[in-house]
Amino acid sequence: MGDPAGVGPEIVAKAWAQRAERKLPPFVAVGDVRAVQRVWPGPVAPVLDLAQASEMFDLALPVLTVEDAGEITPGQPDLEGARCALMSLEMAVGLARSGAARGLVTGPVSKSQLYKIGFTHPGQTEFVAERCGVSKSNAVMLLAGPTLRVVPITTHIPLAQVPGTLSVDLVLAKARATVRGLRKNFGIAEPRLAFAGLNPHAGEDGAIGREEIDILEPAIAALRDEGVDVVGPLSADTMFHERARARYDVAICCYHDQALVPIKTLHFDDGVNFTLGLPIVRSSPDHGTAFPIAGRDQAHPGAMIAAIAMAHEAAERRAASAST
Amino acid sequence: MGDPAGVGPEIVAKAWAQRAERKLPPFVAVGDVRAVQRVWPGPVAPVLDLAQASEMFDLALPVLTVEDAGEITPGQPDLEGARCALMSLEMAVGLARSGAARGLVTGPVSKSQLYKIGFTHPGQTEFVAERCGVSKSNAVMLLAGPTLRVVPITTHIPLAQVPGTLSVDLVLAKARATVRGLRKNFGIAEPRLAFAGLNPHAGEDGAIGREEIDILEPAIAALRDEGVDVVGPLSADTMFHERARARYDVAICCYHDQALVPIKTLHFDDGVNFTLGLPIVRSSPDHGTAFPIAGRDQAHPGAMIAAIAMAHEAAERRAASAST
Repeated sequence: MGDPAGVGPEIVAKAWAQRAERKLPPFVAVGDVRAVQRVWPGPVAPVLDLAQASEMFDLALPVLTVEDAGEITPGQPDLEGARCALMSLEMAVGLARSGAARGLVTGPVSKSQLYKIGFTHPGQTEFVAERCGVSKSNAVMLLAGPTLRVVPITTHIPLAQVPGTLSVDLVLAKARATVRGLRKNFGIAEPRLAFAGLNPHAGEDGAIGREEIDILEPAIAALRDEGVDVVGPLSADTMFHERARARYDVAICCYHDQALVPIKTLHFDDGVNFTLGLPIVRSSPDHGTAFPIAGRDQAHPGAMIAAIAMAHEAAERRAASAST
Repeated sequence: MGDPAGVGPEIVAKAWAQRAERKLPPFVAVGDVRAVQRVWPGPVAPVLDLAQASEMFDLALPVLTVEDAGEITPGQPDLEGARCALMSLEMAVGLARSGAARGLVTGPVSKSQLYKIGFTHPGQTEFVAERCGVSKSNAVMLLAGPTLRVVPITTHIPLAQVPGTLSVDLVLAKARATVRGLRKNFGIAEPRLAFAGLNPHAGEDGAIGREEIDILEPAIAALRDEGVDVVGPLSADTMFHERARARYDVAICCYHDQALVPIKTLHFDDGVNFTLGLPIVRSSPDHGTAFPIAGRDQAHPGAMIAAIAMAHEAAERRAASAST
């Protein structure tokens, strides 16, 4: 459920309420059951394990309480809430790792609160990757909406560090993990990759920066040699309109905002963050804790519903391919 | 008309064809009349001056030929075409500067061809600014579509140079010219400015970069002291979705793609480039020469029509305010 004072508990509950019309699989909320009760009047069933959760799912939102979150005030995060969010994440990763759960959907957390209790990862993605024994460059953050998928090669670093962080090896690692991940989780046999240039107009043949020539083009040539369907580096500004988006399955972007601006401009209410390259299925609604609207019944569950549905489809695909 | 081998001649002609339903004011195409005849079967009237152009406008597209563009092959730019584009631009700026024309709308040019004939400006905007005696930091590139306006503080420089180029003075110069320009040309009395942060999540209070704290926040504080309605620095990824866009009149962005990605994602077919801070009215369709589709009757005139309409409205506002 993420931070108990954020919109996580509310959107999980609202997703449960739409389970039938959105054809959602059974799921269990992990956190403090009071966080849901505080913001949602529907039926809640405290459970002790996943078997109980499956039994209860038709009648009430099953909640596995892992930690007392203390006083919970929606919109006001505190350290006890952060501890509860972290314990919930740890428990949920364990359930997915063990195979008891077929996938993990993480709710929004407050990074600044987590840092105060000693959390040392940039975000939940890196924490999950570490728990799964996967290195950072092989875990790929895919943002997916109904009409666009994007992958940022670099994520939460200052913009000034982006050019120096890009390398042929990093680009190749992210691109290869993206290709494998789209096959495995999304059933796209031959993913079409489109690379965004780093510089304006993709550098205009070196006139406005050389990273396209020195880093992106060699990486793209290597991918092409491996048989990957790839175009670019393209001018970032002209690759995200409707007709352009139809030409590729995923846009590989050089930095955070180059990937996140188009996806959130188009799919703010239903964008999903899906981690490629993990042994487990992991997705997340692509938005934050939204503390200012927490507890006011204003949170839109669209992204949480899309994240649950996407995790479900990926788990089905993995199960089908494992059994053939 | 821009480059005679690009889509410029075709979209000018198509705009003329829609003059009645789109309520366009009389205009004259400047360039080589054969560039239009090559790609468009409608009526064309070669004219010698603007008076003739006004007389002819209801019956045919008036064209002022300034230079023989040599052999014109749509889709195949050459140096003679670039010379024609430059002479056309020079002539059109002169007509606007003199007051004979109430505004200037520039068609798309090939920068690489222009550089080969000795053009030393980064683009047409800088050329026009220089001809008008306006310094680069006071000429502001505004990109405008039906639901979004953006201003990039820096434009055609490598991404690696963006952090070092940003300064409080540059941000203030661009923001002040934006405020004045929106009043003068768009009739927005108290423009609401929203600043995008440079770094992911606008730097998260310095955790992911300090440009927000060291440059943007002091500039924003100074603007606020001057009475400007301003918010930010905001996380760039969450400021361009539909509800967020309703909260401001213009987004001030740190670099080219931060501004151009959202506007072209949303308004690829009808985005207008409008130059604020000039003594003359100048706009342009926000797309390039599109050489691959030139001469095939595939070019969409939406952006050219929007650019002409926007220039017309700005000219009307300036005339009205000058006469009161």
